[in-house]
Amino acid sequence: MTTPTSAVPGSRGPAATAGLTAAIDIGGTKVAGALVHPDGTMTATTRRPTPRDADADGVFAAVADVVAELARSPLWPSVVRCGVGSAGPVDTSRGTVSPVNIGAWRDFPVQERIAAELARHGAAVPTVLAGDGVAMTAAEHWLGAARGHANALCMVVSTGVGGGLILNNQLHPGPTGNAGHIGHISVAFDGERCVCGGIGCVESLASGTAIARWALAQGWTPAGDPTAAGVAAAAAAGDPAALAAFDRAGRALAAAIAATATLVETDIAVIGGGVAASGDTLFGPIRAHLASYATLSFVRDVQVVPALLGTHAGLIGAAAAALSLLPG
Amino acid sequence: MTTPTSAVPGSRGPAATAGLTAAIDIGGTKVAGALVHPDGTMTATTRRPTPRDADADGVFAAVADVVAELARSPLWPSVVRCGVGSAGPVDTSRGTVSPVNIGAWRDFPVQERIAAELARHGAAVPTVLAGDGVAMTAAEHWLGAARGHANALCMVVSTGVGGGLILNNQLHPGPTGNAGHIGHISVAFDGERCVCGGIGCVESLASGTAIARWALAQGWTPAGDPTAAGVAAAAAAGDPAALAAFDRAGRALAAAIAATATLVETDIAVIGGGVAASGDTLFGPIRAHLASYATLSFVRDVQVVPALLGTHAGLIGAAAAALSLLPG
Repeated sequence: MTTPTSAVPGSRGPAATAGLTAAIDIGGTKVAGALVHPDGTMTATTRRPTPRDADADGVFAAVADVVAELARSPLWPSVVRCGVGSAGPVDTSRGTVSPVNIGAWRDFPVQERIAAELARHGAAVPTVLAGDGVAMTAAEHWLGAARGHANALCMVVSTGVGGGLILNNQLHPGPTGNAGHIGHISVAFDGERCVCGGIGCVESLASGTAIARWALAQGWTPAGDPTAAGVAAAAAAGDPAALAAFDRAGRALAAAIAATATLVETDIAVIGGGVAASGDTLFGPIRAHLASYATLSFVRDVQVVPALLGTHAGLIGAAAAALSLLPG
Repeated sequence: MTTPTSAVPGSRGPAATAGLTAAIDIGGTKVAGALVHPDGTMTATTRRPTPRDADADGVFAAVADVVAELARSPLWPSVVRCGVGSAGPVDTSRGTVSPVNIGAWRDFPVQERIAAELARHGAAVPTVLAGDGVAMTAAEHWLGAARGHANALCMVVSTGVGGGLILNNQLHPGPTGNAGHIGHISVAFDGERCVCGGIGCVESLASGTAIARWALAQGWTPAGDPTAAGVAAAAAAGDPAALAAFDRAGRALAAAIAATATLVETDIAVIGGGVAASGDTLFGPIRAHLASYATLSFVRDVQVVPALLGTHAGLIGAAAAALSLLPG
C-alpha cells in the first residue's frame, strides 16, 4: 500500500524467535485469545464477552476461561511466552491495569494473575503486559503499515484516540507502558475541557464521539443515532456540517502528528480504528492540513497511512509486544 | 536543587571514558571551543565572533581559528574525540548545518570540514555533530538538572524555543539530530501563524520575542527596548499586562511539557535560556498551569526545574553529545 521511506537495512521488527506466543487481548466488550506463530499466523482463536456488573474476580473469570481454552490446543506445549494487551491506563512497571471501560478493575494485577493461570495449565512462561495503543503499534511495526520504519507513530481513532511509538526501530512503551498516548496531548491550550480534565486534548477534538458532537452542533441532522459513521456518510454525500466536522478533526490530528514528528522524528503516522475506516473522509483533511503544522525540513515528508491489521490487531499486537519486549 | 524522582541505579550519563574531548560550539554570535576532561571540567577555553557578511568559507575561518587555538594546548595530544554543537537546523545524517542565524551556511558540511581541520593539526579523531538543543540536553543530563533521570525534556526558552530529549537514559537526537524541537510543535491548532510557517507553535507563544510582543499588545509600556527581561521586571513589579504575558507563555509551555510527557513519558522538564533567568516569573505560571494539561496518572508528577549549566552549557553539551553518541 505504501513504500517505506526510511526502511532500515536488516530491520525485521520483533525477533523471529521459535516457539508460540499466547496472546490475550482485553477490552471493554471482549476478551480474546490466540496462539500466535513466529510468522504472525494465529491458531486456536477464542473470545468471551467482558463480564458486566461483575467484581474484579468475576471479570478475571473470562480471562481464565480464555487461557483454559488456549490450553486445550494440541499446540499448547509449544507456547514459550505470553503477551497481554489491555485497555488502559496500564502500569507495566507494576503489571496492573485500570481500564476506563472495566470499572471493576482498578490497579488490577492482571499480569501476575495471568502468569499464575498459565502456570496452572503447565505453561510457566515469561509474560508481558502492554497497553492497547502500544500493542497495536507493535503489530503494525511487525506486520503492518509501519513495517520497515525505524521511527513511527501508530494511532487508533475510534470512540477515543490512542497510540504508540516506534523509536530507533524499537517499541517505546515508556516506563509505565503509556507512551504514545496521543489522544491526551493538547493541541488547543486555550480550548475546551476534555473528559480527562485536560484542555484541548486531541481526543476531545478528533474522536468519533467528538466528530459526531461537533457535526450536530453545526446543524447536521442524523438519520438515526448520531455516530461518526453517520457523519462520514453525510460528508461523503456533501453535507457541509459533516464535512466541517471531519475537517476540524483532521486539523487536530494533523497538528498532533506533526507535533510528534517534530518531537521524536517519526516519519510515518499509521491510523487505524473505526473512524479511520471512513478512509479519505478522514485521511483527506489530515493530509491537506499537515503542511500547516509539519513545517520544518526534517518533518515535511511525514506520511499518513491507514493501518493494515484490522480485527486481529489486538491479538497480533499482544504477541508482537511480547516478541519485542522479552529478551531473545 | 531538586531530587531526581526516577534516578536509574547505575546511571551516570555519558560513559566516563578516558581522554579529552575537543568541544566546539557554533552560534550566531560566537564560535567557542574548549578541551573537556572526563569529569566535565574545561581547559583552553577560547572564542571568536561569528563573522558577519562573510561567505561560507569566511565563517568557517573562525571555526578553524578556534581549532588552531585548541591545538596549541599542551593537552592537545590527549584529545581522542570531538563534539560539535551548532545552531540549527542541522542534519546529522549528512553532517551539515543550515543555521537560521548564519545565512552563509546552507547545508554546510561542518562536520567533515572540522574533522579535516582536526586532522591537519594531528588529531584525526571521531567527530560528532549535534544541534544546540540536543547538546544542551546532553549537558544537563551529564552534569545538570536532568542527571539521574532516564526520561527528560530539556528546553531553552530565549529569543526562540528549542530543546532535546533523553529517553531510556540515552540522548535521543533522532535520525537527523533534530528531535526535541519543542518550539515548533503546535499547542494552538487554530491559532496564529509562526515564522516557521506553522500554526500555533510554542515558540510563537512563549519565546522572549513573543512575550514582549504580547505584553505590548496588552498595554505594557516599556522603559526602553521592549524585551522579555523588561516584561519580567514589570511583572515582578505587578504590571497586569506583563503578568498576563508571562501567564500566557507559561500556559503554552505547560501544554507542551505535558504533551511531551504524555507522548514519551518524560518525568522532568529542565528549562534554561534567557527567559528562564526570570525565575519564578516564568516557572510560577508553568507550574500553576501544568495540572490543567498533565492529567493522566503517569504524567501527573512531571517536574519543571531550572537548568543548572549556564554560560558554558554549549561547550559542555558538545562534549556530552560526543561522549553519548560515540561508541566506547
